[in-house]
Amino acid sequence: MPGSIYGNLFRVTTWGESHGKAVGAVVDGCPAGIPLEEKDIQAFLDRRRPGQSRYTTKRAESDAVEILSGVFEGRTTGTPISLVVRNEDQRSRDYSEIASYYRPGHADYGFDAKYGFRDYRGGGRSSGRETIGRVAAGAVAMKLLSALGIQVNAYAEEIAGIRCETVDLSLCGENPFYMPDLKAAERVQAAAEAAMAQKDSVGGVVACLVRHMPPGVGEPVFDKLDACLGKALFSIGAVKGVEIGDG
Amino acid sequence: MPGSIYGNLFRVTTWGESHGKAVGAVVDGCPAGIPLEEKDIQAFLDRRRPGQSRYTTKRAESDAVEILSGVFEGRTTGTPISLVVRNEDQRSRDYSEIASYYRPGHADYGFDAKYGFRDYRGGGRSSGRETIGRVAAGAVAMKLLSALGIQVNAYAEEIAGIRCETVDLSLCGENPFYMPDLKAAERVQAAAEAAMAQKDSVGGVVACLVRHMPPGVGEPVFDKLDACLGKALFSIGAVKGVEIGDG
Amino acid sequence: MPGSIYGNLFRVTTWGESHGKAVGAVVDGCPAGIPLEEKDIQAFLDRRRPGQSRYTTKRAESDAVEILSGVFEGRTTGTPISLVVRNEDQRSRDYSEIASYYRPGHADYGFDAKYGFRDYRGGGRSSGRETIGRVAAGAVAMKLLSALGIQVNAYAEEIAGIRCETVDLSLCGENPFYMPDLKAAERVQAAAEAAMAQKDSVGGVVACLVRHMPPGVGEPVFDKLDACLGKALFSIGAVKGVEIGDG
Amino acid sequence: MPGSIYGNLFRVTTWGESHGKAVGAVVDGCPAGIPLEEKDIQAFLDRRRPGQSRYTTKRAESDAVEILSGVFEGRTTGTPISLVVRNEDQRSRDYSEIASYYRPGHADYGFDAKYGFRDYRGGGRSSGRETIGRVAAGAVAMKLLSALGIQVNAYAEEIAGIRCETVDLSLCGENPFYMPDLKAAERVQAAAEAAMAQKDSVGGVVACLVRHMPPGVGEPVFDKLDACLGKALFSIGAVKGVEIGDG
Repeated sequence: MPGSIYGNLFRVTTWGESHGKAVGAVVDGCPAGIPLEEKDIQAFLDRRRPGQSRYTTKRAESDAVEILSGVFEGRTTGTPISLVVRNEDQRSRDYSEIASYYRPGHADYGFDAKYGFRDYRGGGRSSGRETIGRVAAGAVAMKLLSALGIQVNAYAEEIAGIRCETVDLSLCGENPFYMPDLKAAERVQAAAEAAMAQKDSVGGVVACLVRHMPPGVGEPVFDKLDACLGKALFSIGAVKGVEIGDG
Repeated sequence: MPGSIYGNLFRVTTWGESHGKAVGAVVDGCPAGIPLEEKDIQAFLDRRRPGQSRYTTKRAESDAVEILSGVFEGRTTGTPISLVVRNEDQRSRDYSEIASYYRPGHADYGFDAKYGFRDYRGGGRSSGRETIGRVAAGAVAMKLLSALGIQVNAYAEEIAGIRCETVDLSLCGENPFYMPDLKAAERVQAAAEAAMAQKDSVGGVVACLVRHMPPGVGEPVFDKLDACLGKALFSIGAVKGVEIGDG
Repeated sequence: MPGSIYGNLFRVTTWGESHGKAVGAVVDGCPAGIPLEEKDIQAFLDRRRPGQSRYTTKRAESDAVEILSGVFEGRTTGTPISLVVRNEDQRSRDYSEIASYYRPGHADYGFDAKYGFRDYRGGGRSSGRETIGRVAAGAVAMKLLSALGIQVNAYAEEIAGIRCETVDLSLCGENPFYMPDLKAAERVQAAAEAAMAQKDSVGGVVACLVRHMPPGVGEPVFDKLDACLGKALFSIGAVKGVEIGDG
Repeated sequence: MPGSIYGNLFRVTTWGESHGKAVGAVVDGCPAGIPLEEKDIQAFLDRRRPGQSRYTTKRAESDAVEILSGVFEGRTTGTPISLVVRNEDQRSRDYSEIASYYRPGHADYGFDAKYGFRDYRGGGRSSGRETIGRVAAGAVAMKLLSALGIQVNAYAEEIAGIRCETVDLSLCGENPFYMPDLKAAERVQAAAEAAMAQKDSVGGVVACLVRHMPPGVGEPVFDKLDACLGKALFSIGAVKGVEIGDG
């Protein structure tokens, strides 16, 4: 059974390869009447966009989203919302080298074993670029949650073993690591530079705070809220651990 | 629970309104390695396209499909296949009259009752134009079925009470009613002209023949093949009766 | 993907073979607070029970239902309702003859082709006895529909080509064919006797009337109410045609 | 959408309240031909059964499982496997005190907020007793995995902050904590006694080892194996953290 669809009442389908023509998402189940414009979605895509600092993947694209359906006169209609982002960085490369081996830490081997086929153009579907569809759909979800009075905020709590000691969400935008503690961010910057000098990378911990959540959301027994969140989080490529509450 | 997704192993999501920017489909679950090009899909969309005779809806659009993902070097990759058809006929009209009443035989009232909202631009999601996504996805399914040796053919068996007496599938393309019996088609033409003169329309019966179907397809007890076909057929707006086998 | 589950918000799982220990159903998604007792379900099972006239399958069992979960102090709790009916008629027989061939008009060949395995004890899962789970779950649905003010009535409209000319639902219980027209029922009785004398059987048409249905039920585009009803009806073994409205 | 069903190809439905008549599970999608007897399932239920040491919940029941369907002549038939365990410990109690408040750390408040209804008989559906259905279904899964050559073993890696230093799975059965390190188990016993003396409880970490897993299991992108395991694990009441691989 294919796995590009998440959710039941609010259903997200993502599609697209890192070096295909476009990536995107279809959101089915968003209620009618929610205000939604392309700029609501673009704001999140801009935050996601790589190439904004020297600490992330290099790839220069505008990642401009287009809403193809589901919105009429600035409001959702209750029908599927189709979101498309064209890939610009499809320049032809010499893939012959990368095509000849499996990259460690990537899904190359798994895809080949499963499909007898490998899209060697930079990871294809297992590329981080697939998350564009998730971010775009997530932006729609944020509009809906906001209409319900629910607040969701995430930030980098720890990077390279360096943990925030204070949390001031307004500071996240002021450092390239989206940390709510500028002192911690400075120490992370030094650690990241040191790792990069050794052609290494560093891991971290993301915290997510949800406020004004009503009781009774989620379904006993297999679709508890914790379980659904856990599934969604573990479906992000690099996530290897999830803790709920005090964990 | 939203309803724009059909199927489990081969999953089709359609999206798009008749007067929005585009309509389309995402096919998730097509196996890797199936030959697929835009022209395979275009052939079916061309057959569906209205405005080809005076007996169908008037609407002049090229309905050109673009494959945005899931195909690499002329073959499917096993990942979601995103298909988009831009709407060209979005010319601004005076909708003020149509917006003021519910059209009989349409879903206008149902949509308004359900969503508290109505997309009065020609039916929106309940327009026959939604079937573009189905036809495009169906064209992918035909490639897959063909690779499995299964043949599917449909034709108009009866229109306006006039029934085919012979079945020669090669004749379907030679008359505007897609009937396999030219004499019946001639009589239908006269009946259609008469109905049109009275600003009326006529109904009909479509027959679908499936050949070389292997045994054991479908799942007991609720997902029997008959049941899944029945659901798919009844989901087409104008279908009001389905018979399986001798019915 | 297995097929013993139907529905989304109100989900029915049926299980059990005709000659196993028991048959039953689990209903997940029934709202809390609906009055429900075993006798509510038993009434429908009693009506379904074979062996009540000479015109149906011979099998003498009480088909007594037991509610194992989901009801507390006479009301549903919102949790899964587990319903069990023990099979009594499991007497050992000589199956050696039936095991050696596929019965025409049954699923014997299909099951063998699919599973490489055949439960030759009277059809196993494809037996009409599987409908006990459906009837029990349907009785729960009737309580819920009734609480919503929706009325559902079904009756035999035509048997052996003989059609009811009048409809008085109160007469259904007064003839062995559940027909609302006693004159038609008398003619059917003669036709049935004649067919039985020739070791033949007769088919028919069941009509189902739904009253006080609110607008907006069902989901565009694949899960329209017509489509969901069509699927459910075609999943019943002997159903070969379905018409909605005037068909 | 109700949440008592887990999985797609191998689907598990659990049902039953802690103080209702019975608890159980229906497994739909187990392939035909897998050897399965009640004792295969009973072995796991016996291991789960409370009241076997002074360190677990007190409740004395045999938890005997009955297979009601899906098995014929000692092998699965490919049809739903219905498993039932009768509750014996339903003795009438005075629930008046417990009914008057919400217990901390339980789902009492959530259920009441969601359903406007509370089954105050010991937690109802949110009781640990719901896991009987999971364990029974899991025992069926173990037979299937075993037929595929896949080994799954779980053990307590850490309890009350005391971590195993060696791992010898054969030792798990020799201590009441299912730890693979007897020295660690001794230290845990002392810590548990101390906590119990203060009417407190202790937490821990369970490790699960899967061996001989083939590549390509799970589906990109939302149904990755990690994501599906994460969801299943977080759906167990007391689980608050999950790590995959080195975490």
